[in-house]
Amino acid sequence: MTIGMQVDQRVSLAVSTVIFALRPHPSTGLMTLWLPLVRRIREPYEGQWALPGGPLEANEDLAASARHTLERTTGLTPNYLEQLYAFGSLDRSPDDRVVSIVYWALVQPDEVARAVDGENVEWFVADELPPLAFDHSEIVTYALARLRAKITYTPIAYGFLPPEFTLAELRAVHEAVLRTSLDPANFRRQALASDTLVATGTYLQGTSFRPPALFRFTAGAPTPLPEERR
Amino acid sequence: MTIGMQVDQRVSLAVSTVIFALRPHPSTGLMTLWLPLVRRIREPYEGQWALPGGPLEANEDLAASARHTLERTTGLTPNYLEQLYAFGSLDRSPDDRVVSIVYWALVQPDEVARAVDGENVEWFVADELPPLAFDHSEIVTYALARLRAKITYTPIAYGFLPPEFTLAELRAVHEAVLRTSLDPANFRRQALASDTLVATGTYLQGTSFRPPALFRFTAGAPTPLPEERR
Repeated sequence: MTIGMQVDQRVSLAVSTVIFALRPHPSTGLMTLWLPLVRRIREPYEGQWALPGGPLEANEDLAASARHTLERTTGLTPNYLEQLYAFGSLDRSPDDRVVSIVYWALVQPDEVARAVDGENVEWFVADELPPLAFDHSEIVTYALARLRAKITYTPIAYGFLPPEFTLAELRAVHEAVLRTSLDPANFRRQALASDTLVATGTYLQGTSFRPPALFRFTAGAPTPLPEERR
Repeated sequence: MTIGMQVDQRVSLAVSTVIFALRPHPSTGLMTLWLPLVRRIREPYEGQWALPGGPLEANEDLAASARHTLERTTGLTPNYLEQLYAFGSLDRSPDDRVVSIVYWALVQPDEVARAVDGENVEWFVADELPPLAFDHSEIVTYALARLRAKITYTPIAYGFLPPEFTLAELRAVHEAVLRTSLDPANFRRQALASDTLVATGTYLQGTSFRPPALFRFTAGAPTPLPEERR
């Protein structure tokens, strides 16, 4: 709102969410990271793809806003939700000053199968995105770097796994996220030494005559603050 | 501002900064973490201590706002500056809705000696603070936890050290931050194995007949985004 020459210098606040899920790559068939984007239906950047999100409502806390965005975009609830970063460069939006607090979410495979895409929503391979609106390409790059760093030192893979899983399933998540193949014996040794896994004492049913053992994480990757816990 | 029954539902945005420096503890004389606080001169929480900060100006990016706060509070420039977290619970301010984007800064000892405290500013031992305004006690607890976690896996100690330092000086920083004594031989072995240090080939001058070697970090602790780099 402008009154005479006086320009409204207020800064507005948005919350956006980078939602990662693992699905097969359309050409290679290998498990890979995907994320949903929303096609903008108004200027600026009309017709371009952007991260799902919106203005922070006065009656919502930050994580609740991120969860609502996720629900509205995909119909899903996250298995893992963490604040990524607040982006506030002066030039990130052409017409006004917007600070975006960005969350990232991991969605579990069972959930992905149930995803109901919202209007103007489409899923993309995370490393093969079209040019995005605003600074959203930079945000996705940062989120991918954070995910790939964090999976090497915290049990964040649980965000992509059911509560009980085999070491082969855990390795497949690491391979998909890191886009590399990992030596099974080395991975097994490191995983068991990492102190974050415990054998459930049960085995995967209905497979070979040597069914693989099931594991669970000893604790979920700790989220830093109460508001991010479900 | 209220107009009739219509309440202003806008969310305002503040930037606050947790500024850590190492100084001797007033009773034990041991090096310990300190931080500056500002006494509030208006309601809410008039007379109580709070983190330095203020509303985000429309023409400032987030890190610039944090740096200006640091300059205004202490006259110093940070040796390390990183975004900590955005705090946005609904009830964190009694009268209005404020989201605070919090930075944390580390200040180098030479700098601390030159600190010129701003008005209503006082330094406190970080682990012995009075009750703070708003949710600032929770923010400090979180910043301390982040600092203590991060020093174990990144070369963040450089924020408290001159560009060249001895292993004893590096160990003293770790001991002060972690509030524990560390075995010199173990610390030396781990520090040299960490791949973040390099010997300068020079030695501390004017000391014993076996002067200790000087080291520097191979790279500063990487800050995630350009806006946080100086």
